[in-house]
Amino acid sequence: MAKAKSVLQVMRVGKNAGKLSKRPTEATDGVDGKKDARARLGELTDELSTLQYALYAEAKTALLVVFQAMDTGGKDGVIRKVFGPINPQGVRVTSFKQPSQIELAHDYLWRIHGAVPPKGVIGIFNRSHYEDVLIRRVHHMDPDAVINQRYEQINEFEKYLTQNNVVIVKFFLHISKDEQKSRLQARLDKPDKRWKFEKGDLAERAFWDDYQAAYGMMLSRCSTSYAPWYAIPADKKWYRDWAVASILVDTLRRIGPRIPEPKEDLNALTIE
Amino acid sequence: MAKAKSVLQVMRVGKNAGKLSKRPTEATDGVDGKKDARARLGELTDELSTLQYALYAEAKTALLVVFQAMDTGGKDGVIRKVFGPINPQGVRVTSFKQPSQIELAHDYLWRIHGAVPPKGVIGIFNRSHYEDVLIRRVHHMDPDAVINQRYEQINEFEKYLTQNNVVIVKFFLHISKDEQKSRLQARLDKPDKRWKFEKGDLAERAFWDDYQAAYGMMLSRCSTSYAPWYAIPADKKWYRDWAVASILVDTLRRIGPRIPEPKEDLNALTIE
Repeated sequence: MAKAKSVLQVMRVGKNAGKLSKRPTEATDGVDGKKDARARLGELTDELSTLQYALYAEAKTALLVVFQAMDTGGKDGVIRKVFGPINPQGVRVTSFKQPSQIELAHDYLWRIHGAVPPKGVIGIFNRSHYEDVLIRRVHHMDPDAVINQRYEQINEFEKYLTQNNVVIVKFFLHISKDEQKSRLQARLDKPDKRWKFEKGDLAERAFWDDYQAAYGMMLSRCSTSYAPWYAIPADKKWYRDWAVASILVDTLRRIGPRIPEPKEDLNALTIE
Repeated sequence: MAKAKSVLQVMRVGKNAGKLSKRPTEATDGVDGKKDARARLGELTDELSTLQYALYAEAKTALLVVFQAMDTGGKDGVIRKVFGPINPQGVRVTSFKQPSQIELAHDYLWRIHGAVPPKGVIGIFNRSHYEDVLIRRVHHMDPDAVINQRYEQINEFEKYLTQNNVVIVKFFLHISKDEQKSRLQARLDKPDKRWKFEKGDLAERAFWDDYQAAYGMMLSRCSTSYAPWYAIPADKKWYRDWAVASILVDTLRRIGPRIPEPKEDLNALTIE
């Protein structure tokens, strides 16, 4: 575990984030191939289930898990694999799509705040407020000055949440441009995936470099001590799932939820 | 399957519901013991996963699943067992607890309507609007005339939903008074369950007969052709899980969701 831990530590984005292009999209460090990774994922999700039960019973802390990635990056897949085995009552997934008219009429954190999980619950964001410094930056949908303000606004918002019992962990699923190509091709080729395909996906792919720059800035400006970003090498799905599950188990262990004592003295109770 | 189907049909509450006390809390019809029931549950949840994927892809219909039961009746357990294996992105559980001040300031269906699942999603209600004709009837929290109006209001509300692409199926998990006793005792005895125990649970148990009468009235007044109630014999957990999963698979098959064709002509597309 000591070795695995240091492997995971490398994925945590620190103060001097450096270039995104220097970060690997492929890695095998910490596991012994696919079979080992899958076996250990099973152990990790068992532990996640146990920790989730205690988190729910204690009801003192919420866990907010943010996923961001390029299209086909694996957000849906990792959510299914890592959170699938957990009691659905304790997990709440919010997928942020293009904002509605009502959402656009509010400040950009309004819809986000409404979806923050309550104490005892694991909230999962499939996309998030970071879209407001990603797609909106790449396509110049807001003035640069407005977007540049957001990094600090987001940091303050996340700090406020962590000061109020919401633990935050953020995952950027990092894939290569080649890997995206083969996954888009697979969507075209697999009959039960074709419905997902839109030509717009290809149009976005043409902005690959701009997106990488926007992700890089997001990581270096918004990975904080209280709400860290992890850049997960995500070309190999089994590695991605193992890494995300490992970091979540580590995060929940540090929260250390404990099943509480009964609210009342239950001794000498008789059930009629 | 023919036999199993007729077994399940018996659980569906019809026009002449009859006395709740005539309905079994224990049954084994349709399965060959626990081992068989558990094996078939695995097959059923596999099929549920496949159907859920198509429901999500098609995004034309929502499925709303309502669970009501006496305390310890198994709502949490059945949700974990039947929906646990399904992609958490397509499932949304709402647990209705004692209404908040804000909720009480609105009509009783207001918080319910807000939690109705969107198209493509399976929404699960752990308790529901039926609390307004159960606990509120048993403890005379509203005048009888007000409560008596609600059955029809609920039927109209559910009819409206089903006319607007929300398919509704409702499960009453039916346990015996003896079974509740042994489950409450187990909560007292198991260290990791004791935190759940409240003396108030015993106070409610004293109203057993009043609750059975209120459940009976709910079943006979609100099991409609468009939003049926099923009374599930729930003393045996493995039977309960099999029955609920079977009825859900049957319901989803009748919805018959199909993965849609691609939105655009994808032929001759090249990914650069």
